[in-house]
Amino acid sequence: MSDVLQLTCDLISRVSVTPEDAGCQKLIADRLRGAGFKIESLRFGEVDNLWATHGSGGPVLVLLGHTDVVPSGPREAWFTNPFVPEVRDGVLYGRGAADMKGSVAGFVVALERFVAAHPDHKGTVALLLTSDEEGDAVDGVRRVADTFRERGQRIDWCITGEPSSKAKLGDLLRIGRRGTLSATLTVRGVQGHVAYPEKARNPIHQAMPALSELAAKCWDDGYETFPPTSLQISNIHAGTGANNVIPGELQVLFNLRYNPHWSAQKLEAECESVLRAHELEVSIHWHRGGEPFFTPEGPLRSAAREVLAKFAGEAPEESTGGGTSDARFIAPLGAQCIEVGPVNASIHKVDEHVSVADLEALPYLYLALIERLLD
Amino acid sequence: MSDVLQLTCDLISRVSVTPEDAGCQKLIADRLRGAGFKIESLRFGEVDNLWATHGSGGPVLVLLGHTDVVPSGPREAWFTNPFVPEVRDGVLYGRGAADMKGSVAGFVVALERFVAAHPDHKGTVALLLTSDEEGDAVDGVRRVADTFRERGQRIDWCITGEPSSKAKLGDLLRIGRRGTLSATLTVRGVQGHVAYPEKARNPIHQAMPALSELAAKCWDDGYETFPPTSLQISNIHAGTGANNVIPGELQVLFNLRYNPHWSAQKLEAECESVLRAHELEVSIHWHRGGEPFFTPEGPLRSAAREVLAKFAGEAPEESTGGGTSDARFIAPLGAQCIEVGPVNASIHKVDEHVSVADLEALPYLYLALIERLLD
Ligand SMILES: [Zn+2]
Ligand SMILES: [Zn+2]
Repeated sequence: MSDVLQLTCDLISRVSVTPEDAGCQKLIADRLRGAGFKIESLRFGEVDNLWATHGSGGPVLVLLGHTDVVPSGPREAWFTNPFVPEVRDGVLYGRGAADMKGSVAGFVVALERFVAAHPDHKGTVALLLTSDEEGDAVDGVRRVADTFRERGQRIDWCITGEPSSKAKLGDLLRIGRRGTLSATLTVRGVQGHVAYPEKARNPIHQAMPALSELAAKCWDDGYETFPPTSLQISNIHAGTGANNVIPGELQVLFNLRYNPHWSAQKLEAECESVLRAHELEVSIHWHRGGEPFFTPEGPLRSAAREVLAKFAGEAPEESTGGGTSDARFIAPLGAQCIEVGPVNASIHKVDEHVSVADLEALPYLYLALIERLLD
Repeated sequence: MSDVLQLTCDLISRVSVTPEDAGCQKLIADRLRGAGFKIESLRFGEVDNLWATHGSGGPVLVLLGHTDVVPSGPREAWFTNPFVPEVRDGVLYGRGAADMKGSVAGFVVALERFVAAHPDHKGTVALLLTSDEEGDAVDGVRRVADTFRERGQRIDWCITGEPSSKAKLGDLLRIGRRGTLSATLTVRGVQGHVAYPEKARNPIHQAMPALSELAAKCWDDGYETFPPTSLQISNIHAGTGANNVIPGELQVLFNLRYNPHWSAQKLEAECESVLRAHELEVSIHWHRGGEPFFTPEGPLRSAAREVLAKFAGEAPEESTGGGTSDARFIAPLGAQCIEVGPVNASIHKVDEHVSVADLEALPYLYLALIERLLD
C-alpha cells in the first residue's frame, strides 16, 4: 500500500465529524515534526488548528486543509462502513476520502518529500489545518487568520486542497470565489383594518419601492471571470391570512453574491442608503458569509496551470464559481489563493470515494507545485 | 309586555344560528297573512327567504331584514342563556336582540299597524327576510335579488333594519356602503439557487414593480361622502426560510374598498391590465364581496332624516362607513337604500342586548317612515 493511501486510510479511520479532529492533526504533526517542521497547535474553543512550517522568510507558501468531515448519515445508506476505509476495484471509499483527507494526506507526503529533497529551499513552506471547515467555521481558519494578522504573518501563496476537479484530476483550477452576504430585514408599519387605511401604515406598500430598487439595481458588470454581483430576495412574509387586516410588519431575507468590486462593508452601506432614502422604519441584521477572493495572472496561477495540464492532459478550466472555502479567510491577508484537489462528484454524499490512481497522483501534483514556487 | 317585546322574545327563543331560520319566518308569515299580506316563501338551498307584500303597483317600499344570528360562543361567557330572552333593568338580553330580531319585530308591528290604519295606502309595502345574512350570503338576498331581476320586480326604496345607531337610537343614518373586492394572486417564477440567478426567475423581483404600481395608484378622490377607493395588500408570502434559494412562486392577497365610481368588474379589469403590462405569469382569483351603494338626496333620505331627528333629538349623522349588508344586493335593482336600526355596540359579542325603550320605539320609528313614504 502506498504511503499516501495508507495515511488517507489512517485519517478516515479517525471519526472526525466536524468540529472533532479525533487525533488526525496529532498524527500529522508527529510525522512533520520528524521531517524537521516546526509545529504549533492553535486551539480556539473546541476547534483544533495545526500550523506547521519549514524554512524561513519569504516567499511563504501555505497548503491549507481541514481534518473534519460532514456527518455520514445512516450507516445503512452506505455500502461500506463510512469510517472503515475500503478499496474496491481501484476506488477508496470512506467519509472524507475526497473532502478532504485524501488531499491532506497528499499535502503531508508532498511536504516530506520536498524538504527531504530540498532541505535548504528558499522561503517558507507551511501546512495549515483546521477541524472547523464543514461546521460553523468560526473558531477555525477565521480565528487563525486573526492571529496571523496580529503577528504580521506574511503569506504569499495559498493552495487549498478542496476537491475542485470535475471529471478528472486537474481539469479545473479554482482561482477565486464570490463573496456572500445575507440580510434579515424587518420593515415596521402600523397594523389596521383594510377599511380604514388612513389609520394604518402598510409595511408592504412602504417597502416595495425600496425592494424594487434593490432588486433592479445593477451593481457591476462582472469582474474578470466573475459574473455580475447579484442580489436575490429569497423570502418575503407579511400577513396572517386574513384579507381584511393591514399587517404591522414585513419580513424579508435577501442574499448578495458578489465579486471583488465589492466588500461586505461597502454592500451593507449601499443597501442601507437605499433603505434610508425611502424613509423606512427598518431593522436589519447582516450575516457576512465570506468575502470574495481572486487570484490574477501571476506565478501561482501559471505554475498551477502548467502542473495541472500535465496531469489532466490539457489546460485546466480556470474558474471562480462554486460556494465558499477557507481561502476566504486567507485571501484578505494579501495572499494569492488557488484551490486544487480531487474529483468532487461524491463529496457530502453517501459512498464518498476517490480513485486510488488520483489519490496516488496527488503527492506528485502538490510536490510539483511546491517545487515550481520554492525551488 | 308590549307587542314588539313579546315578538322579539319569541324570535330570540328560536335558535336560528345562520343559516337556520328555526321557524322565525313562519311565525311572522302567519301574523302578516292575518293582516292581509300576500306571502311567498323563496327557499334556495338550505336558506329560507320570506317575501310578504301589501298593496299593488308603485312606489314599492321594502323593509329588509334577517332572522339568522351569529353563533353565541360558549354559554359560560354569557351571564344569561343567549337563547332565553331575559329583561334586566330595562335591557333585553339574548343573541339577535340587536342584530336584528328587534328590528324585525319592529318591522312586523309597524306593518300591521300601517295596513290597519291605511288599508288603501298607495303603492306597495313589503317585508323581505332571509336566514343567510350572517353566513355565506349566497342563497339569501343575493338569490332573491336574481329572482326579482328576472321578474322585473320594481323596488323604489329599501329600509334595512341593521343596527346602525352609535350611542342612541336614530343618531346615525346609513346612506351607502363601500364595495369590497378581494384578490388571491399567484405569481410564478422559476426556482433556483441564489448563486445562479441567470438559471432562475425570481417571482418576488418580477412582481414588485406591478405591486408597487397597484399600491401607489390613485383610484379616485372619493365620491360624495365616501373616502377614496383604496387597495391594500394584506398578505405576501414567498420562500421557505432558506436564504440561498430563489423561490418559484409568490402568493399575494389584496383587498379593495371602493366607492360608487367603480364596480367590481371595472376594478378587476384595471388590476389585470396593470399585471398584464408587467408581463407577469400570474393566476388570479377574485372574490366579489359586494358592490357599493349610495342613496343621494331625495324623498327617502329626507324622510329618514326628519323621523330620526325626532327620535334622537337632533339630525342624524349621514354615513357611508362600515362593512357590508344585504342592501348591496337590493341597491343594484335600482332601489334607494338606507339602514336604520338600534344601537350596535353589543352585536356579534357576548351579552348582546337592546334597551327595551329603544325596542319599543322601533315600531313607531318604522311606522313614521312608512307613512311619510306611502300615505
Ligand atoms: Zn472541504
Ligand atoms: Zn345583521
